[in-house]
Amino acid sequence: MDVRSHQNMTMLCDFYELTMGNGYLRSGYADQICYFDLFFRQVPDGGGFAIAAGLEQVVDYLSGLRFEPEDIAYLRGRGIFCEEFLDYLADFHFTGDVWAVPEGTPVFPREPLITVRAPAIQAQLVETYLLLALNHQSLIATKASRIVRAAKGRPVMEFGSRRAQGADAAILGARAAYIAGCSGTACTISDQCYGVKALGTMAHSWVQMFDSEYDAFRTYCELYPTNAVLLVDTYDTLRSGIPNAIRAFNEVLRPQGITKCGIRLDSGDMAYLTQKARIMLDEAGWPGCTITCSNSLDEYIIQDLLLQGAKIDSFGVGERLITARSEPVFGGVYKLVAVEHDGKIIPRIKVSENVVKITVPHFKKLYRFYARDTGKALADYMALHDETVDDGGNFEIFDPDTTWKRKELYNFEAKELLVPIFRGGELVYKLPTLEEIRAYCAEQLNTLWDEVKRFENPHGYYVDLSQKLWDIRNDLLMNARRSQIPAEE
Amino acid sequence: MDVRSHQNMTMLCDFYELTMGNGYLRSGYADQICYFDLFFRQVPDGGGFAIAAGLEQVVDYLSGLRFEPEDIAYLRGRGIFCEEFLDYLADFHFTGDVWAVPEGTPVFPREPLITVRAPAIQAQLVETYLLLALNHQSLIATKASRIVRAAKGRPVMEFGSRRAQGADAAILGARAAYIAGCSGTACTISDQCYGVKALGTMAHSWVQMFDSEYDAFRTYCELYPTNAVLLVDTYDTLRSGIPNAIRAFNEVLRPQGITKCGIRLDSGDMAYLTQKARIMLDEAGWPGCTITCSNSLDEYIIQDLLLQGAKIDSFGVGERLITARSEPVFGGVYKLVAVEHDGKIIPRIKVSENVVKITVPHFKKLYRFYARDTGKALADYMALHDETVDDGGNFEIFDPDTTWKRKELYNFEAKELLVPIFRGGELVYKLPTLEEIRAYCAEQLNTLWDEVKRFENPHGYYVDLSQKLWDIRNDLLMNARRSQIPAEE
Repeated sequence: MDVRSHQNMTMLCDFYELTMGNGYLRSGYADQICYFDLFFRQVPDGGGFAIAAGLEQVVDYLSGLRFEPEDIAYLRGRGIFCEEFLDYLADFHFTGDVWAVPEGTPVFPREPLITVRAPAIQAQLVETYLLLALNHQSLIATKASRIVRAAKGRPVMEFGSRRAQGADAAILGARAAYIAGCSGTACTISDQCYGVKALGTMAHSWVQMFDSEYDAFRTYCELYPTNAVLLVDTYDTLRSGIPNAIRAFNEVLRPQGITKCGIRLDSGDMAYLTQKARIMLDEAGWPGCTITCSNSLDEYIIQDLLLQGAKIDSFGVGERLITARSEPVFGGVYKLVAVEHDGKIIPRIKVSENVVKITVPHFKKLYRFYARDTGKALADYMALHDETVDDGGNFEIFDPDTTWKRKELYNFEAKELLVPIFRGGELVYKLPTLEEIRAYCAEQLNTLWDEVKRFENPHGYYVDLSQKLWDIRNDLLMNARRSQIPAEE
Repeated sequence: MDVRSHQNMTMLCDFYELTMGNGYLRSGYADQICYFDLFFRQVPDGGGFAIAAGLEQVVDYLSGLRFEPEDIAYLRGRGIFCEEFLDYLADFHFTGDVWAVPEGTPVFPREPLITVRAPAIQAQLVETYLLLALNHQSLIATKASRIVRAAKGRPVMEFGSRRAQGADAAILGARAAYIAGCSGTACTISDQCYGVKALGTMAHSWVQMFDSEYDAFRTYCELYPTNAVLLVDTYDTLRSGIPNAIRAFNEVLRPQGITKCGIRLDSGDMAYLTQKARIMLDEAGWPGCTITCSNSLDEYIIQDLLLQGAKIDSFGVGERLITARSEPVFGGVYKLVAVEHDGKIIPRIKVSENVVKITVPHFKKLYRFYARDTGKALADYMALHDETVDDGGNFEIFDPDTTWKRKELYNFEAKELLVPIFRGGELVYKLPTLEEIRAYCAEQLNTLWDEVKRFENPHGYYVDLSQKLWDIRNDLLMNARRSQIPAEE
């Protein structure tokens, strides 16, 4: 059940999308077919790749796109839109084509994650929401993947709702984290809406509520004997918390033959405390008691704790995951790459003073090449929409910036990454379940070499252009500035 | 109109709030009256103060708190809650008391922004949403206030929806930014729902859509002659963008006698380009043409640009505002500070290995002392709920950590900052309008000395405790650990 999908987010657009829309209508561009690519320019945290997420919310949004009478009334009240445009909006629904990379796919800078082909007004209007949905969830999935990798197989729970940047950030952030490998969340509604398993036991307030820490622990063990995870740092972890926990385990769980239980630490030096705790628990006959740590963790702290021999069985990660604290922006952009004139596709480019902001023009295909022997991903390859790659023989690719760097591929398989989502406004994509997305993500991560996955100075994965696409881009670049200089200069 | 308030966020809770709730019911604590404080421990970015925001969303949430039949069904399906608890939830609504600091108030670490007095299950259940709402909007308001201060009176527009961490982050982030002094937003729905003025003109795609940059500019000027702000960096700002803009202004606006217009730069070196642009515009007879800059701005870049003599009239600030990129977490917490036994209020404390995590116990009042001559804020002062401050004479305050640091106040006025919001579950607070909140925020910022407002190493504002409160806290601290050590040790 998705209790969230009832919200109409059509008005979540940048105001300029409406002023431009009104302008397109009035200047005869309303039906101008355009191609927009959604892509990003840089992997957060200097990582080697990102994980695409958020497509399901894009599908919900596009499927439900419509202006309500109160929206039209608001827009009329702004006094700058013509009645013809307001009428157009009143009948508005999405009639375009969309291709996208499936959720959970590892992705790289400059390649299209979504391509939209639609009449100008529609294609422009959806810019903000498409970016917002992909940017947010790809950000969190990418961050969560790093944290999960640092934990080396130990479960990582997402605990960050209270520090999330709003309700959607909590709810959909938990979803994105789960896609990337987190084992669950503290956020109840994310379980109810999306099936991200929600778990939790007690806060410090539970311990404070009772007359003693021991009373609090004993009561909890009596209530939840098969899920007794006790928070041991309310007063003094080693002198009070753990001894009281052991006493409660001994008195309540042992007589029932229960050997599985847990403690959680939320403050103090985790490396020291968990090693001490492990000894105390083992000596007391509780080797089956797991140790969970929380408290401002991220991939670097987890890596360090494990290097220092901390005895931690699972992690609860909050604010630094749910806000991607170390780099909280996923810089996806949405750029015009082509228009159609008389059925012919005319590429368009955006030049910029900042070279990294120059776009890859045209309606494109995106291939990923996998080695047939190892299954590993070798390179991504952007080609024109009507090019095909023959993966039956050898194939030369080249670096689009330093074109003398060339590489011959052999014994490889070419797979297209962009799949059709909407055709003529009709949904043609069967949305996978969350479990399917999560499994696909894990499987695709396995196709990346470890060199691409490391945190520091990862190997730069190849994202190349076909020769035809490179030529078109180069020509457009050479001509773009020249042709725009005003005639009277 | 608030189209967002129809969402029921009751299930946006951490799962442990439900396991604890079920536990409180089963162990006889269901009606235990508790006091929780919501407070934060550190100002983001090393700032001297934060700005409280998000209370309106807390009021909406508490007013609508209820579990739907499908929520109860989901919880029953989890198989760990007793039927008595599920019945309790089915009838659940908020019956407690709430006090809070009004939105827009400058606030400081350790002081309660919200105090909740309610039966244990209720007080516990609302933890996540209250934190999420206050943390998010206080974060953005605090960041926006810094950016607005850096701009020294020039308008700052919030442009970040596309990079926001989800829809709420975009919509409510724009609201919070407006409270703190931003002049508007690009986000249309924030205007529609909250009255945050939405503005916008064109994207690069508008320029790319036409056969030439000049055609794009001329068409826009014809369509919107009184609001022609042209984006001049699609091809080449100085050689193409500005000359084409001037030509369009000359040919379309000048004949109509219009002298006000604008250009926007979204890339390149803003200091150099804007100085060049200003000269070109002035020489062409367009001194009334404003220059707006966007592109990954924040308070430091704005400060630097202005120091370097950039000719900028207004700023559009996106991702670094809407995510509070430099420090995207507002670390508010929600802690039990007291319980009632037989009508008597018993203070509770949370000790911790991390000293900063130790709480200020008890049901409290929060005063702000203002100098009667200058109107400036002198200190904040937490006292027991039944203490009063006589501001008729002199008054000694002391630093709660280094108690020998003392200060005598005279000729001051004491104002209580916490105001009643709910009494017995009834809303007793008249929510101010957004404009009122924004005006109140500006007025309160004027009561802070510049030393508290600077970015680097701001003066530490005093937040002190009454002697009685200090004594209680000290006694609890001394006793807390001692009393928890298990008897058998």
